[in-house]
Amino acid sequence: MTSKKAVVLLSGGLDSTISLSVAYQEGYLVYALSFDYGQKHRRELENASRIASYYYCKEHRVITLEGVGGSSLTGDRGDIPPYEEREEIPSTYVPARNILFLSYALGYGEAVGAKAIFIGVNAVDYSGYPDCRPEFIDAFQQVIRVGTKAGVEGRPIIIKAPLLNLTKGEIIRLGVKNKAPLHLTTSCYHGGDKACGRCDSCVLRIKGFAEAGVKDPIPYQECQGGGLDN
Amino acid sequence: MTSKKAVVLLSGGLDSTISLSVAYQEGYLVYALSFDYGQKHRRELENASRIASYYYCKEHRVITLEGVGGSSLTGDRGDIPPYEEREEIPSTYVPARNILFLSYALGYGEAVGAKAIFIGVNAVDYSGYPDCRPEFIDAFQQVIRVGTKAGVEGRPIIIKAPLLNLTKGEIIRLGVKNKAPLHLTTSCYHGGDKACGRCDSCVLRIKGFAEAGVKDPIPYQECQGGGLDN
Repeated sequence: MTSKKAVVLLSGGLDSTISLSVAYQEGYLVYALSFDYGQKHRRELENASRIASYYYCKEHRVITLEGVGGSSLTGDRGDIPPYEEREEIPSTYVPARNILFLSYALGYGEAVGAKAIFIGVNAVDYSGYPDCRPEFIDAFQQVIRVGTKAGVEGRPIIIKAPLLNLTKGEIIRLGVKNKAPLHLTTSCYHGGDKACGRCDSCVLRIKGFAEAGVKDPIPYQECQGGGLDN
Repeated sequence: MTSKKAVVLLSGGLDSTISLSVAYQEGYLVYALSFDYGQKHRRELENASRIASYYYCKEHRVITLEGVGGSSLTGDRGDIPPYEEREEIPSTYVPARNILFLSYALGYGEAVGAKAIFIGVNAVDYSGYPDCRPEFIDAFQQVIRVGTKAGVEGRPIIIKAPLLNLTKGEIIRLGVKNKAPLHLTTSCYHGGDKACGRCDSCVLRIKGFAEAGVKDPIPYQECQGGGLDN
């Protein structure tokens, strides 16, 4: 019996881990894929490795990306700003990041004969990145349909974005339901031992746990993980 | 005065060099981008470097791609086959190659503020790769439109594929007209000092020069560059 295979993009954060839990629940043999792109929060990569082990992934590949920059997340465009409500795309936007990630997942997926790629993007409670929206996923699916061997042969790799239309609270409830190892995830852009509680990513995480009515199992600096013990 | 900028994908082959000559003619300040993906014909990269110098490119970045494989071109899927007429996609197909190349070009282009990306793909006299067709370019353009900051802000980077609808002969005539340094280009998949004259890439090149009625300035093994001296 050959298992159906999937490449799962795994950052080590909350969303990608819960996306992996969905692939696991759906019975895929998982090839996990992470990237080292000089992100300040490299702690993610250690977490990703533990999470891949937790799920008995067939393989966990970490690709070093060169030449990715132009973002405060990679340290060459100023400091990471604290959370704020805003209209514009924040400085933490990394040019073409998800496009690169999906491209690598696609090459990897074609090489191992995967049927699907899982990506934990979310268009509801997100940071305003253009490459987290359904239009983007649809457009990339079309690239796969017309630009790959499997695609033109009528069996394109399918992009699965199981969190796309969920709120952060719904995502966390899904993770709890799937018994995802939320204690192994990290979200903070600063990547310290304790989450800062102030960057966009922490604030969204905290709001999500509060919305889900679930206690966040990871440690925060001081008490600013506000409401964690509610 | 700020010059308009373009990222030019430059393999060191005939098509990418002539595509660069078009960018140069159109007045772009060029950021050349090449990839080391373990291809057997790495000689291309030295040629790319000479060609970038020839055109006074603002920068020539060579990105090392990890984890690209599943092709006879990268040495992990058998030998490079000699040329033949065929219906199916050849084993020299590298999964998601142009998708990865365009993704990197896009990230680079966003970081330097480029208006265009030049890619030397050709859908007429090509090797049957799905990612060399207009449908593919259109699909990727849509990804840029909806998945990048510049795109959603209404000024997407434009993919220019000036050779897309030309025959190999027309491409070579364009190169001659633009005074492109054809003597610095290499096409052979084997990458030796002299071109083999037998692989897909050599055969297409030889046919092209014959069609254009132009002498190919590069050396071939024996006389199998047939018709070069006509």
